[in-house]
Amino acid sequence: MAVIRKQHGHFLDDFRPGQVFRHKRGKTITEGLFAVFTDFSMTTNPLSKNARYAKAYGFRGMVVPPGLVMAVVFSQSVEDVSENARANLEYIDMRFGVPVYLGDTLEAETTVLSVRASTRDPTLGVVHVQTTGHNQDGQVVLTFQRKVQVWKRDPQATVADGEVPPREIPVSLGLPAYEPSRPYRDLAHLSSPDTYFEDFRPGDVLEHSRGRVVTTDHILLTGMLDNTSQVHSNQWMIDQQPERYVGGQLIVFGGIPFNLCLGLSSADVADNALADLRYATGRHTAPVFAGDTVFASTEIRALRDLPGRPDLGVLDTVLHGHKFGPKGAAAGKVEIFYLERELVVKRRSHYA
Amino acid sequence: MAVIRKQHGHFLDDFRPGQVFRHKRGKTITEGLFAVFTDFSMTTNPLSKNARYAKAYGFRGMVVPPGLVMAVVFSQSVEDVSENARANLEYIDMRFGVPVYLGDTLEAETTVLSVRASTRDPTLGVVHVQTTGHNQDGQVVLTFQRKVQVWKRDPQATVADGEVPPREIPVSLGLPAYEPSRPYRDLAHLSSPDTYFEDFRPGDVLEHSRGRVVTTDHILLTGMLDNTSQVHSNQWMIDQQPERYVGGQLIVFGGIPFNLCLGLSSADVADNALADLRYATGRHTAPVFAGDTVFASTEIRALRDLPGRPDLGVLDTVLHGHKFGPKGAAAGKVEIFYLERELVVKRRSHYA
Amino acid sequence: MAVIRKQHGHFLDDFRPGQVFRHKRGKTITEGLFAVFTDFSMTTNPLSKNARYAKAYGFRGMVVPPGLVMAVVFSQSVEDVSENARANLEYIDMRFGVPVYLGDTLEAETTVLSVRASTRDPTLGVVHVQTTGHNQDGQVVLTFQRKVQVWKRDPQATVADGEVPPREIPVSLGLPAYEPSRPYRDLAHLSSPDTYFEDFRPGDVLEHSRGRVVTTDHILLTGMLDNTSQVHSNQWMIDQQPERYVGGQLIVFGGIPFNLCLGLSSADVADNALADLRYATGRHTAPVFAGDTVFASTEIRALRDLPGRPDLGVLDTVLHGHKFGPKGAAAGKVEIFYLERELVVKRRSHYA
Repeated sequence: MAVIRKQHGHFLDDFRPGQVFRHKRGKTITEGLFAVFTDFSMTTNPLSKNARYAKAYGFRGMVVPPGLVMAVVFSQSVEDVSENARANLEYIDMRFGVPVYLGDTLEAETTVLSVRASTRDPTLGVVHVQTTGHNQDGQVVLTFQRKVQVWKRDPQATVADGEVPPREIPVSLGLPAYEPSRPYRDLAHLSSPDTYFEDFRPGDVLEHSRGRVVTTDHILLTGMLDNTSQVHSNQWMIDQQPERYVGGQLIVFGGIPFNLCLGLSSADVADNALADLRYATGRHTAPVFAGDTVFASTEIRALRDLPGRPDLGVLDTVLHGHKFGPKGAAAGKVEIFYLERELVVKRRSHYA
Repeated sequence: MAVIRKQHGHFLDDFRPGQVFRHKRGKTITEGLFAVFTDFSMTTNPLSKNARYAKAYGFRGMVVPPGLVMAVVFSQSVEDVSENARANLEYIDMRFGVPVYLGDTLEAETTVLSVRASTRDPTLGVVHVQTTGHNQDGQVVLTFQRKVQVWKRDPQATVADGEVPPREIPVSLGLPAYEPSRPYRDLAHLSSPDTYFEDFRPGDVLEHSRGRVVTTDHILLTGMLDNTSQVHSNQWMIDQQPERYVGGQLIVFGGIPFNLCLGLSSADVADNALADLRYATGRHTAPVFAGDTVFASTEIRALRDLPGRPDLGVLDTVLHGHKFGPKGAAAGKVEIFYLERELVVKRRSHYA
Repeated sequence: MAVIRKQHGHFLDDFRPGQVFRHKRGKTITEGLFAVFTDFSMTTNPLSKNARYAKAYGFRGMVVPPGLVMAVVFSQSVEDVSENARANLEYIDMRFGVPVYLGDTLEAETTVLSVRASTRDPTLGVVHVQTTGHNQDGQVVLTFQRKVQVWKRDPQATVADGEVPPREIPVSLGLPAYEPSRPYRDLAHLSSPDTYFEDFRPGDVLEHSRGRVVTTDHILLTGMLDNTSQVHSNQWMIDQQPERYVGGQLIVFGGIPFNLCLGLSSADVADNALADLRYATGRHTAPVFAGDTVFASTEIRALRDLPGRPDLGVLDTVLHGHKFGPKGAAAGKVEIFYLERELVVKRRSHYA
């Protein structure tokens, strides 16, 4: 007989460059997850709201929004990669593949690209990984790298410092073709009229007017993603050693403000997007806690053609998330999220 | 380069009598929205709980309850009509059309019937509109008028005072026919035995015994309806100028107590209803905030035949919602909701 | 005209041994209920997460986890049996039948086995019942007995003390056959590698490392089960007479910690279970309130063969739930849940 403390997840000293994790579970996208999460995020793109519209565009049905695809694939990697993380440092080269639909099953795997012990703190280090998610047909839906600050299991342990190059992951957006016979113009009233490719000017900054307070509902939402990181749900653990945790309280999973910022921006930037193409880099620049109201703004950096698709263009943007300190406090506006975001946007010439 | 503050919704000075808004997005009724919202409302009618029962009655599947149809269609009109409203004043002549099922896509449009500047407050006025929702086959699922108190964008602006008559909107409940060969009696144990048409007496007041506290879950629920009104979700905005907002805190979207009152009453009044027919008038008589427990009662006003359907009758009722002030406070019972409600109810003679 | 206070549920003096209740409503398992509840519970078994996996095993689709089957069938019995209960005392001989799938409609009935007035408190007594749930094809999905402490309607009333024997309810798990041609090994990375039958030793105690705080989200979750017991949702009622209610506050429905304990244990005990077979006895040993963080551990009692299935074995366990008192308080660790649980677990020899 033995009392066995079952531990999940890996620590810094467990990772080795080149190591591959095929993550557990997988997740089938139900109408429950889709509805709760998509609506929570305040996404307004009709492709994710209106099946009649999505089908008329040639999609198989409503399209799972990019932020939810990200949150599901990312969360599958949490147990192996970041269940024992202190902080998620950076998203790198996140590229989207084929559309994800209701009923699809997503599974993911991660390769460890590098491991580095901290030179300042013997209890910590940084792991750099590459995670790829695919659907039940083996098509890539998302691939990205990220850097995570992870605790060591044993401060004395040797860390397998080193690195391997990222794997080549070919991805294709798999967008439906433009068909002049489709009733695009009859549906044009369903999306924002001022968010076609022709409407954007490099250098403009769009301040999105809506805000949304995060409540303790973040715990339920994070659970719906199967994200098992304890810093989002284990109040007792935090209360034992608040000084060990960012902010000394339950921290909101980054996927929550990530999705909220995408959603808050959508009526002004992405209502006529057919897809998000790539997030070159992204990071959570300050923590979010229950009670914070999240806002977003978008900086238009550049506009470019999408080869082979004269009906579409690519918008290079930076999506910023922010919150405010308490009224009257010196804190003022605090940036919480930074994302270099490339979107594939319809041209008015072809659609409206 | 420019910093552009993107604003959504219209202000009093933007509305003109006769103006038509075809609302954006539309919404497909997923099993996620259906389950979360129907169950939250505490509806007990098996038509919205039990697919076996609903199909045996000749419906295509479980029926989306009237309150949810209302909340979805109404919320589609919020961005254009009431995103910048101070208060929703009245629902008028709300009539239900064909049943709404899982997978249906609802879209809506609104005609402005009248615009009136306030004679007392130069920053406010009242807009009277008519909103109609239809499904993917173009069938009307709901039509109603409402009056909303809306802020002016510019207190100095001229308001297009005036009015146009409401449009004629033919609606049909589209109920399945009564078929003696169907196993109605074998299913009778699944609904309340004392809520057939024969059980009601004009003048009776039924006090529904259940209550349900509203928590901050109202924010998630309101988001699930795509209702973008900021007074329900933007805590920071409220905190900047609490004196400008009713109660100085986030106010619960009226669709929440509306649905809760319908649900709390259903076991006693609507368990054997096949449909809600019409709400002649309705209003939110006091605000609801997180922490309030909502209760309901129903006054039976009259009973009448439904032409062509000897198996059914129409119940004219008034549905009252209420809450209580803090224990020991003078406030006592506070009416929060008033709805003149007509239901189509089964006769025991035909069904049990 | 009359004012009628509609009351739901029965009181001790209403029950008679041998009485049968065919419960109202029934419930169709939507993707909404499934997703919200399954994910909330933190279940990790891929049979309830991944449709590709479940189908490859020969199931019709994702399997509704045992805790949710329990919570749905149990909740259907609440109005008739325990809407006016003070406490749920014990679950007895809970046996699971055929798998439950998305779209199934569950209905339930209850037989009163015994009624006993309290010898100490004239306002209370205990009812012992047997509840059985079946699907739309009449197959049993669950049967169990429970004992409930119920208030009397009238302290002076005579109680129909007495008992009848439980009914014989044949149940069959209806598990898919083992087929060597199925790709079990190709899917093995999707479940925990250390939870096959061969991995367990009698006497071991597994402390599950994850915890989850219960927030006011318990009210929404309980509503999703159609559980109408007022002590979980009627804040105003509690505030009027806190001394009458356990803890003087809204109490979390037992189905919530029940599911959470099953879920928290699953990665360590049930990730390779094909079904839960039987819960011999179970009880909530302390109340749970919003703010409590729930933890679980599992004691391995015995391992035995499953007749006719050399690919599977039966694990006899005790699942314990616990929470902690406030930091620094003398309370320390408090047991909240005890469940004698028998699981049907895959053998590594056949599956990995």
